[in-house]
This record gives sequence, C-alpha cells and structure tokens, in this order.
Amino acid sequence: MSYFDAASSAPLHPVARQALLASLDEGWADPSRLYREGRRARLLLDAAREAAAEAVGCRPDELTFTSSGTRAVHSGIAGALAGRRRIGRHLIVSAVEHSSVLHSAELFEVTEVPVSRTGAVSAQSYVDALRPDTALACLQSANHEVGTVQPVAEVAAVCRQAGVPLLVDAAQSLGWGPVEGEWSLLTASAHKWGGPSGVGLLAVKKGVRFSPQGPADERESGRAPGFENLPAIVAAAASLRAVRAEAAQEAVRLRELTARIRARVPRLVPDVDVVGDPEKRLPGIVTFSCLYVDGETLLHELDREGFSVSSGSSCTSSTLTPSHVLKAMGVLSEGNVRVSLPPGATSEEVERFLEVLPGAVAAVREKLGAPTPSAVVREDSLVVDALGKRCPIPVIELAKVIGDVPVGGTVRVLSDDEAARLDIPAWCEMREQEYAGEEPAENGTAYVIRRIR
Amino acid sequence: MSYFDAASSAPLHPVARQALLASLDEGWADPSRLYREGRRARLLLDAAREAAAEAVGCRPDELTFTSSGTRAVHSGIAGALAGRRRIGRHLIVSAVEHSSVLHSAELFEVTEVPVSRTGAVSAQSYVDALRPDTALACLQSANHEVGTVQPVAEVAAVCRQAGVPLLVDAAQSLGWGPVEGEWSLLTASAHKWGGPSGVGLLAVKKGVRFSPQGPADERESGRAPGFENLPAIVAAAASLRAVRAEAAQEAVRLRELTARIRARVPRLVPDVDVVGDPEKRLPGIVTFSCLYVDGETLLHELDREGFSVSSGSSCTSSTLTPSHVLKAMGVLSEGNVRVSLPPGATSEEVERFLEVLPGAVAAVREKLGAPTPSAVVREDSLVVDALGKRCPIPVIELAKVIGDVPVGGTVRVLSDDEAARLDIPAWCEMREQEYAGEEPAENGTAYVIRRIR
Repeated sequence: MSYFDAASSAPLHPVARQALLASLDEGWADPSRLYREGRRARLLLDAAREAAAEAVGCRPDELTFTSSGTRAVHSGIAGALAGRRRIGRHLIVSAVEHSSVLHSAELFEVTEVPVSRTGAVSAQSYVDALRPDTALACLQSANHEVGTVQPVAEVAAVCRQAGVPLLVDAAQSLGWGPVEGEWSLLTASAHKWGGPSGVGLLAVKKGVRFSPQGPADERESGRAPGFENLPAIVAAAASLRAVRAEAAQEAVRLRELTARIRARVPRLVPDVDVVGDPEKRLPGIVTFSCLYVDGETLLHELDREGFSVSSGSSCTSSTLTPSHVLKAMGVLSEGNVRVSLPPGATSEEVERFLEVLPGAVAAVREKLGAPTPSAVVREDSLVVDALGKRCPIPVIELAKVIGDVPVGGTVRVLSDDEAARLDIPAWCEMREQEYAGEEPAENGTAYVIRRIR
Repeated sequence: MSYFDAASSAPLHPVARQALLASLDEGWADPSRLYREGRRARLLLDAAREAAAEAVGCRPDELTFTSSGTRAVHSGIAGALAGRRRIGRHLIVSAVEHSSVLHSAELFEVTEVPVSRTGAVSAQSYVDALRPDTALACLQSANHEVGTVQPVAEVAAVCRQAGVPLLVDAAQSLGWGPVEGEWSLLTASAHKWGGPSGVGLLAVKKGVRFSPQGPADERESGRAPGFENLPAIVAAAASLRAVRAEAAQEAVRLRELTARIRARVPRLVPDVDVVGDPEKRLPGIVTFSCLYVDGETLLHELDREGFSVSSGSSCTSSTLTPSHVLKAMGVLSEGNVRVSLPPGATSEEVERFLEVLPGAVAAVREKLGAPTPSAVVREDSLVVDALGKRCPIPVIELAKVIGDVPVGGTVRVLSDDEAARLDIPAWCEMREQEYAGEEPAENGTAYVIRRIR
C-alpha cells in the first residue's frame, strides 16, 4: 500500500494531529470574545499566525487564514484586482496555473503566458504580457502536475519594475521553504504540506492595494469571512514548522527517489515520455506519459497493485479534457501518470513501483491493442477513421498504419476526440515523424501526419 | 468556571471529537480520486451528507457542506439572487437577522421587516414587503441574541404563495430540531450545535433556481469551492445526529433553567429589563439589560466570577454601536447580558450565577455613579450636558436630575453617543416618563424627556 499522490493531499503530519487534538479542547471558543475561553482562543490564534508568518516570510498582520487554498486564491485575486481597479482589469497568469487561479482569472481580462516544453515560464514573457491596464500578475512557485519550479524571483523583479503586484500560488512548495523574491501576495494550502484540510493562507504585503470582495465580515482583517477554524489553524501552523524543520534532509532523500524513477522508467517501459524540468523541480514529483495507454485504466491497474497515483490524462473519469498543463507544455497527455511522494516514502516502495509499472502498462496496452483500423488505401495516403473513438485509440491506430504508407506519404486520422489535437503532434515528435497540421472534416477533424523515416 | 455563551460557539460534543479523530486517519485524501484512499474519503463524505440531510430534512443531493455558516449564508443568498436575476434584485430580510445575512443583503436592494418588542416578525409584514421584483426572502429560525423563535412556517407559506423562495438561517436552532414549513434554502453552522468549526451547511431544495457565484469549482456541486474539510464534515454530521438524539430531554432541562433566570433576575436586580419572547423561545437563551450599567465592565465582573457570557450592548469593545437586534426590538441595550447555556449546563451553575449577578451589577453601578451632572436650571427645564460621555452615562445623568424638574417639566440630554438614541426612549418606557423626541444640537443631539409622574 503506497500512497504516491501527495501533490493532491498529504497524509496528516503527526505534529498536525497532536496540535489539532490539543487545541480541540482549548480552541473552540470565539477569539473575539473577552472572557477567558475567548482570550485563550485569541492567544492560540495569535501564536499560530506568528508561526505561519515566520514560515511564509511576512509580518503576522499581513497573513490571513482562509478556509482553503482555493479560497485564498479566489480572495487574493479578487481583492488585489479590486484594490487596483483604477489601473484596469487585466491580469497575467501562466498557462500552467492551478485551476483555482485560472477559474478566478476567467472573470477578468486575462493574458496567459506560455511555458516551455519543461513547463517553465520566462520573465521575458511576463514583460511581453504587461499592459498599461495590468492590475495583477500570478505565478505558481512550482507546478502541481509536473513539479517544475518557476523563476518566481525574476518574474517578481520585472513585475515590481512595472509597478504590478505579483501573486504567488505557493501551494506545492511552501512546505519545502519560503518563496524567494519580492512577491506581493502569496497563497498556500495546509493539506498539501501535511496540515489539516480546511486551512489556507493568504499573505498580502503592506503597501499592496487590497480591497476584500463579497459581504463585509470583521474576522481575519475582513479578508476571510466566517468563524475561525481554530484547531485546524493551530495544527496548520505547527505542522508547517515541523515539515520545514525536516525539509532539507527529506528533500535530498525524495529527490534521489524521483530521480531514480525519472531515469529508469524510460528504460523499463517502451514509448514513455518523462515530462517536466529534470533539474529545477520539486523533490517529490515525477510525471511521465505512456503512449497507447488509457490513463484511467492504468491508474486502476496500479491501484490494484497497491499504488495510489494520479493522472493528467484526458482518459480519467474526473475530467474529459486533457490536462491544461500538459497541453500548454505541448507534451503527450495520454497514459499520463503523476507520482508525488509524501515525506517518508521509502526506497522499497519506489523499487516495487518500478517493478510493477512495466507489467501494468503492458496489460493496458494489450487490452487496447485489439481494434483493427478501418484503413483504406488511396494512392500515397491512408485515412484512419477513428471517429467516435476515445483517447488513446486514435494514436494507437495511427501507429499501426504509419508503416503502410511510403516515406513521404501521409496518414489522415479522422477524430472527434479533443485529446487527439494534443496527442497526435506529441506522438509525431516522439516518433520523429512530421505533423503536417489539421483540417476540418465531417463530424470531426482530420490530423495529417507525413511519414519521414 | 461556567461557559454560558453557547450561542457564540458550543464546546465540542464528545461524538464530534470521536468522529473527528477517527476520520483524521481515513479522511485526508481527495474524495474525487479513484484510488483506495480517495474512494474511502468519498464513502465518508457520502455517509456524512446522508446523515446531515436526514437531520435537515432534505435530500442528500440538495445539501452542500461549506466552510462555515457565514459562507453558507453568503453563497446561499448570492446564488439564489443570481438564479432569479430576471425577477429582480430585491430581497426581504428581518431586521434581526445575523450580521452575515445583513451584510450579504447590503449588496442588493433590501427591505428590512420590523419586529415586535419580543423580537418576532409577522407573516403579514413579509406580505407587505413583497414586490414584483422580490427575488428572495430571508428569515432566521430563531434569534441569536434573544432566543425568540420566528414563525418560519407561516412566512414560508406566504412566500410560497407569492412564488418567492425563502432562505432560513437555522444556525441557532438546527441542533434542536428540523425547521418546519416549506422553506426553499437553509443554512446552518456546525460549531453552534457542538460540531467542529470549519463546517457550514447549505441546503437548496430541488426546483429552486440557484446559480453559484464566484470562480468555478467542481467540488460540492459547484456551491462550495475548495478541498473538502472531510474530518470536520464527518464530525459535524455525527454530532448533529448525537445532539438531536438528546435534544428533547435537554430542551426541557435547559428551558427550566432559563425560565428560572427570566423569573428571578428582575427580582434580584433592580432596574432590569428581560427581553425576548417568554414562551416562543429557544431552550438555552435568556437575555436581559441592566439600566445604568456598562456592558463591558459587567462582562468583566462576571468573567472574574467565572462566568462567560456575551453582550449586545453598545458598551462592549467588539462593537461601538448597540446591537441591531435590541435596537430593532426597541428595548434597552445598556448593560445587556446574553446567557446561552450549553447542553449539560447544571442547575448549580445557574444558581451560582444568580447569586453573583446582583453584586456584579451593583459594583458596576457604583463605579459609574460618581459623575456629577453639569445641570443648569432654566425655568421648568433642565439641560444635561453629556457630550463626550459614553453609554450608560447619559442615562445615569438623566435619572439623577429627572426629580429636579416639576411634573410637566422637561429634561434635555445633550449627547453624541449613538446608543443614547436607543437607551433614552427605553429608559422612559421603563420609568413611565414621556419621551418627547430628539432635536439636532451643537456637536450632537438633544433628547427631550418630559416628567409625567
């Protein structure tokens, strides 16, 4: 039984558990009351704020506890934009932000900054996106799906020069260390570092114009309405200190384990693409995509073998479109697996994962290998009718017939699955074939591939 | 040590504590994931929703877990108004709603329905407030400051007849039983019934038009963004069942204790006004106001004696204006004390409270009795200059000089304290003197009192 999905939610850290238990008895009263139970709750809240602020790298009065990381992002973006509404309603985000950032951004005028094939932005692309009416820029400290660390300090510097505040979504990295550079706002989520669910952080540096949105509420400086979730806040702050104390050592250990996966998966499994930056990355995350594999079926196979991982594939039940992160990186999304190791993950677990993975991938490929392409020879070109077939079938059928056309000939894959738009070009890149573009076709799209080797 | 402020926040129920502990180990994973930890979390979430829905009296798919009662109110009002935006932006609230309702209402076009001297609305006043563009009506199930139970079923019936949905804020009553009548939306807060903080409920009955506001999020039917606070949700549902099982018996017991306070406080303490409905009231709440007393000082005295109570007085540090509830009821706000007994409060505690209260009130009155009014005789009228003096000093000075004018003569109290507007008329009513109205005066307001006995 190995839980390898810490990037979704980490198991509760023992210190979080202890702190939560201790403060259940001390911290249930209203901290705004003046009687002894209220004063005791206030003391706990103040101490938690001080500890968390120190870990974040801000002043206690700059830090607000929200009810989740998502709420911190929603409130942070809405408040920062409202605070600068005289400047304009334009904001800049990277194309690989968490959905909470992208969904907030949808409500405004947004420019999405592109990323490299490893998933990183450049400071220059933020410079290029800046406009006179830019009210806010957002950048994650590190990507949640592929682990790539972003150049936050550089982007913060160019934003500062332009007088635009930068909001950093530090959800994936805050447990590992403070965010570098002169950011203006910062958000985070306790359950990502082993704290309890129900607690997010929103830091707003002094001097940043901020106007909380929604109905007025006197709690948490008016930035997080509702009764304070005090036991969870105490547990969040205590566990943040605890994971930070262990971070340097644990980072080295997990980095070695994920490096092992990065190096060995391509040797153990044919037709695999390991994605994300090989160096500038979080210690615990490694992501790869397997050609001709349905992500959901693979997750199911791995779950049966005792491994809990997640997938940014289009072929998972939680979503029908491929991961926007993999899409923005321009890498293969099919058969995608994200391994995110929790602190304490062992070498033995990783070895066992590497043992079972090749068999699991092979089993899925065998299951999917059956369909016969309905291919019709037409001079130097073949047409594969994959209409109505879902990822990864269109790519599997393409791979089966590419050898049937002469070098220089083309294959036209007819598909109505949105994932094909991403996966067929990615397959071409992996296979060193030429992707010649797409054309509208009856009931779908024709993707044209020219055989060049 | 007696905590008598359950209406602010109840101590954690033992069942909540057990359920929270049990689900810390089982319920930290993402319930939308398909691996075993995710499936286990989903089972816990589904079971909690089923249990809570049964207690609320709705279907599980009508119930959403929010991060607090305040959030439930904010989301419920915003979503219901957006769902009926074609009808209009008008909403009706009672004048004695919780601040979360009133602050939400501020963002729209609002009619406040008045209440009687006991704090209750009438169904007729909702009928009177209905307009063709009324999109929503809101009514608490029972008042949080004075405990008066509202005629929800009657108000729901008149709203239904008009085709207007009714949102019921059941924060104070849900632990005692389901809300009667055909309401459309319902909100509640777990820490009010002994559940953990960090959990609110929002029920939206099928057929009610509802359009969630704010950035999109796939969790909780799109009605409560952010990662589910699962251990707390499980604890909330389990404790709601537990308090319900004990409710009938505990209600009888607490009602007897609060009846004892209602009956004996006016006999033990001179110049006291017990407010709220003597019959149609919550079992555990009793509220009274003491003339010539500063609420904050009295709270401090009672805290020193080991009693934690709260105050809707203007004279508490958390607020500078008198409670909007007492104001709407037209009752005295000075020296206000709300006693709200938690389940398990004992007869001995209540007896000790009744023992120490008279001395505490007398001590505060003695402290405040010192100032000499700067009164100037001017024919049949006296002027009391209480400018710059805070509640309850203006009323104390008025009481000192009323005997100095002949019957038929008047006293003009000059005051710049907002509380005087409420407390001077209330004093006149208690003392059977005539309140002749107010006039603008230099630097404040002149309140005119005619001596009639």
